[in-house]
Amino acid sequence: MEEGEARAPPSPSSTLEKQFDDFRHRLDESGSLRERIRGVAMEIESVTRLMHSSLLLVHQSRPVPEVLEKAKAQIGMLKELFHRLAEILRECPGQYYRYHGDWKSETQTVVSVLAFMHWLETGSLLMHAEAEEKLGLNNSEFGLDIEEYLIGICFMSNELPRYVVNQVTAGDYDCPRKVLKFLTELHAAFRMLNLRNDFLRKKFDGMKYDLRRVEEVYYDVKIRGLAANGDSMGDQGIQGES
Amino acid sequence: MEEGEARAPPSPSSTLEKQFDDFRHRLDESGSLRERIRGVAMEIESVTRLMHSSLLLVHQSRPVPEVLEKAKAQIGMLKELFHRLAEILRECPGQYYRYHGDWKSETQTVVSVLAFMHWLETGSLLMHAEAEEKLGLNNSEFGLDIEEYLIGICFMSNELPRYVVNQVTAGDYDCPRKVLKFLTELHAAFRMLNLRNDFLRKKFDGMKYDLRRVEEVYYDVKIRGLAANGDSMGDQGIQGES
Amino acid sequence: MEEGEARAPPSPSSTLEKQFDDFRHRLDESGSLRERIRGVAMEIESVTRLMHSSLLLVHQSRPVPEVLEKAKAQIGMLKELFHRLAEILRECPGQYYRYHGDWKSETQTVVSVLAFMHWLETGSLLMHAEAEEKLGLNNSEFGLDIEEYLIGICFMSNELPRYVVNQVTAGDYDCPRKVLKFLTELHAAFRMLNLRNDFLRKKFDGMKYDLRRVEEVYYDVKIRGLAANGDSMGDQGIQGES
Amino acid sequence: MEEGEARAPPSPSSTLEKQFDDFRHRLDESGSLRERIRGVAMEIESVTRLMHSSLLLVHQSRPVPEVLEKAKAQIGMLKELFHRLAEILRECPGQYYRYHGDWKSETQTVVSVLAFMHWLETGSLLMHAEAEEKLGLNNSEFGLDIEEYLIGICFMSNELPRYVVNQVTAGDYDCPRKVLKFLTELHAAFRMLNLRNDFLRKKFDGMKYDLRRVEEVYYDVKIRGLAANGDSMGDQGIQGES
Repeated sequence: MEEGEARAPPSPSSTLEKQFDDFRHRLDESGSLRERIRGVAMEIESVTRLMHSSLLLVHQSRPVPEVLEKAKAQIGMLKELFHRLAEILRECPGQYYRYHGDWKSETQTVVSVLAFMHWLETGSLLMHAEAEEKLGLNNSEFGLDIEEYLIGICFMSNELPRYVVNQVTAGDYDCPRKVLKFLTELHAAFRMLNLRNDFLRKKFDGMKYDLRRVEEVYYDVKIRGLAANGDSMGDQGIQGES
Repeated sequence: MEEGEARAPPSPSSTLEKQFDDFRHRLDESGSLRERIRGVAMEIESVTRLMHSSLLLVHQSRPVPEVLEKAKAQIGMLKELFHRLAEILRECPGQYYRYHGDWKSETQTVVSVLAFMHWLETGSLLMHAEAEEKLGLNNSEFGLDIEEYLIGICFMSNELPRYVVNQVTAGDYDCPRKVLKFLTELHAAFRMLNLRNDFLRKKFDGMKYDLRRVEEVYYDVKIRGLAANGDSMGDQGIQGES
Repeated sequence: MEEGEARAPPSPSSTLEKQFDDFRHRLDESGSLRERIRGVAMEIESVTRLMHSSLLLVHQSRPVPEVLEKAKAQIGMLKELFHRLAEILRECPGQYYRYHGDWKSETQTVVSVLAFMHWLETGSLLMHAEAEEKLGLNNSEFGLDIEEYLIGICFMSNELPRYVVNQVTAGDYDCPRKVLKFLTELHAAFRMLNLRNDFLRKKFDGMKYDLRRVEEVYYDVKIRGLAANGDSMGDQGIQGES
Repeated sequence: MEEGEARAPPSPSSTLEKQFDDFRHRLDESGSLRERIRGVAMEIESVTRLMHSSLLLVHQSRPVPEVLEKAKAQIGMLKELFHRLAEILRECPGQYYRYHGDWKSETQTVVSVLAFMHWLETGSLLMHAEAEEKLGLNNSEFGLDIEEYLIGICFMSNELPRYVVNQVTAGDYDCPRKVLKFLTELHAAFRMLNLRNDFLRKKFDGMKYDLRRVEEVYYDVKIRGLAANGDSMGDQGIQGES
């Protein structure tokens, strides 16, 4: 009898059990992978929040270098955390986009913070390649998704009207002109893209309102003749309208 | 001229333009890829709908072989369409899960239809590997995601209570017992999985109602002694009442 | 100057910072406590799911003692897990109800499973004190909330119509009478309570449908004379209606 | 008779009835406790609404001392009501958080009103300990939950933009600067907290908009040189533009 059973093909239900047993292992594996990813993503969120808090001091007219110094000190930590993410993802090749949703929102915020810092320091846009480099994402397998980069840039743009308002309040009347130039170019660049009807499109639509608000502040400053005094930079093509 | 350009650093705005020009190309590429995927997915949906329509005739007690023949004739077409999907995806290695959302719902329906056909023919569950083979998805790069397979199986389960009711109406009093056995084993197998609180979990929760409905039909048949004739399983302890 | 500062009252902003620093510690503490509670609650859920899976075999007419044995083997584990919960809660006296929401749903399921097992074994209701004892909750600080117990009992009642249907199918025609008697008494007992318009009330309203379904099955069995044969238990007050 | 009872075990249904009878008493007790709590909470709500109405006169530029006087007259009443709450809760030790939901919303409003009054009087934040003292909640058993305090402070922040707008309208051009300083510090303090993704988090997110609105008003005042007169703080660097 036992011999006979040994030779018989597996019963349907044992095949079924075997398949689901296999599924259970694989779903558990993918579940624990996801938990580890979420763990790192939450650490990224926490570091970014610290950096953002430091940066907010620019709205109170603290000197930019001082403000940047504190935030910059955290970049190494971010790099380390993205390295850990990349190592986790290396365990499951070709599945970057399977788990992407578990860290993308945090990455967008990271980009917005880095781009704001870069702009404060240089007055120019943090390029995609520069963002990747800062985060140590220059290898081919774990990169910075273009859409996350672009959404992060939109978030950064949302910070600018507030910055302009507070700078003017503190007496820096040349700030609106500079921000307006930057934001106008950025907005024009985004307009080159064919955006689908999705989250990025919605965020980009919001950039229009940032632009308008900065235009209004520039207008306020110009119409009162406040911009006129210090405004002698030839390359801007703006000359002392009364 | 060339010399001059070589010496001057690129102006910030031209770098910006270049980056967004590059983004435009990449977003357009990914957009057209997505459109091609959606095109194939819609063809898959159309073929599956045809197959499903053919299959629905089993509820009118048409002979199973006749019903299956028509549906089976379409499997080659499905295989061809999944082959086209796989070829499109081969253009962007490692991005299976990036575009996965664009064909997953259609794939779930395909699985449910194939699994129903397989069950009608063999009385057993279409295994994951069998489903992959039918769709020509046996290579490693483009496979059948486990969760889509499982959701498809849940959809198939939803078809069974109706099938049982119609079979009993048509005089097949042994059907409930067979379906109940199948569904009980399937339900038990699913219970082995640690499902996250997501779509699959919700679909599986619905399988409980299919099971109960089939139990109720089996009960109706048994209590009226209708199952007694063909019911040669001694363990049921029911003897020709009425 | 320094002396002066030492004597001066703390500046408002340092008081503010100190208060929020204190809040941060306390919120972090409560957050990590909550995470530990959730961890244990998820283990409870997992053990209960295993027990429930074993119990479901009674619907396939497996012998009750065999079915119970497997489920009973897990009770020790549950007791251990509730002990760990109680120990965590002991760290924050008087805050049982603050974190109660984090394990109450799992506890309701535990009660429903234990009560179903108890009913299968004894035919009577698992009392609140018995449930507490099985879970080792007999000390005064960490008890089984009455409402969780009652909701768990309602969940158990939901299992009974299915059990009756499957027992009758398997030829046990005396089952409906016994279940009906139990459920009628249980329903009457619940009706003594003044329930607020909340979750428990809603669950109790559902018990009415369980009762009706069991009445219908009993009716089916009686009207066909199936119950008549074996029905000779004097204490039930049911005598051979034709 | 007594002898007989002593020998016979209680019948199952009498045990059942006894248990549910006990539950009925306990649920009724807890229900009537809840009603008494709700009664006091509604009185608290009523007194707070009166206080809030008095306070709203500050938006019409009534003198602050006069406005405060009326509102302050009610604090004793609040203290008395919280004392009654505490006495009710003393009847059920360790169940503060069981009934907490029945007065927490009212308590948040109380905090917001007291904090607004305190700010009008002193220009600084009402500390948690000060709020507890005003409400006589300084004993250890019935305290002011930190989260309710924090939510109340967020509600208070929502009042400030309106206050600033109306003060400027009435000619008080120094108000925006003072409010901005206060709100900036408060916002920074909140950012130190790791807020879960809950109600408090949502309320805090709203504080950002209060801050921006006040910045905008300060901007309007500065750009028109209106703040210049009373503005003797050298650190602002703004000198009498016309």
